[in-house]
Amino acid sequence: MSKGQRTRELILDDALALASQVGLEGLSIGSLAARLSLSKSGLFAHFGSKQDLQVLTLKQAQRLFQKDVFEPALAEPSGLPRLRALFSNWLAWLERDRPGGCLMLAASAEYDDRPGAVRDLLVAGERELRGAIAKAIRLAIDAGHLAPQTDPWQLGFEIVGIVLATHHDRRLLGDARSLSRAEEAFERLIQACRPAS
Amino acid sequence: MSKGQRTRELILDDALALASQVGLEGLSIGSLAARLSLSKSGLFAHFGSKQDLQVLTLKQAQRLFQKDVFEPALAEPSGLPRLRALFSNWLAWLERDRPGGCLMLAASAEYDDRPGAVRDLLVAGERELRGAIAKAIRLAIDAGHLAPQTDPWQLGFEIVGIVLATHHDRRLLGDARSLSRAEEAFERLIQACRPAS
Repeated sequence: MSKGQRTRELILDDALALASQVGLEGLSIGSLAARLSLSKSGLFAHFGSKQDLQVLTLKQAQRLFQKDVFEPALAEPSGLPRLRALFSNWLAWLERDRPGGCLMLAASAEYDDRPGAVRDLLVAGERELRGAIAKAIRLAIDAGHLAPQTDPWQLGFEIVGIVLATHHDRRLLGDARSLSRAEEAFERLIQACRPAS
Repeated sequence: MSKGQRTRELILDDALALASQVGLEGLSIGSLAARLSLSKSGLFAHFGSKQDLQVLTLKQAQRLFQKDVFEPALAEPSGLPRLRALFSNWLAWLERDRPGGCLMLAASAEYDDRPGAVRDLLVAGERELRGAIAKAIRLAIDAGHLAPQTDPWQLGFEIVGIVLATHHDRRLLGDARSLSRAEEAFERLIQACRPAS
């Protein structure tokens, strides 16, 4: 990495922390410059516009998600072990010490009716995520860990529901039990999809 | 209803439509006055502050939810028929022709880290809702429609997850299949909780 790239990485980490507090829409070159005690013109050299900054910050969050949630799961044997790892890494991601919770989930509600580059990137990321979950489920079917009639997209939808309820209950209700509820819900789902033995 | 109350009701219906587009935080006496072609001072006579307006608009949405989702479900026989009605009325509520989807769900993401009167009202409404779902589940257990070991709060959590995934997929991905996915997920959940026969 060049010095310029490293600087940009550090700025993006800070942008991510700020966006998690104020929302991606609240993130601006001015607010980030104030937080970093940098000049706005200095930041403009890295990011040409507010929207560029928002898009790059979201990409940074997506990269982190990939690194913290997906990559360790891919190190597990394919099938149920990988699917379980994916789910538990995702729960751990929700629990990470960030003031605003998961940036992608917060931004989904923020941008669901705002057309533009941020929404497009969110949708692309979500589709990639859902495809990757469906693939992990398909591999679990192939391995004989889940019943052959399991619908990977349906099961993926239900897993996402558990994650959304966990995020919602943690963030809005401050409900500490939501994690164990999520684990119980996931187990019930997996048991319902096990092959007849 | 007095004429003053009727006027206020009409204004709140419009505030609800506006908030569903711009978010509850984007709702202000100025933006509502512009939309209704009324003077700001006229609106201030009804709502003393932006926060009053936000709180009353959220209360209006909660009342509508009560009327459209809960009241018709209470007309069904208690037990599984009522729980099913609750769920399908809730899905229908998500599908209603409102530009911004469910105001309570949008506001939950918007206010989960903004302390104040709006968040307090959201939390109170959510707790009431979850209590009412748990009660409907308990009545279904009492009626022998669900197994006695069913945990009403756990099942309620999982039902909320299905609703959240439906809202998310409809709003962000424009996925029309989310409704049938939701119905299938609910049936699987109910079957898993049926008493052994």
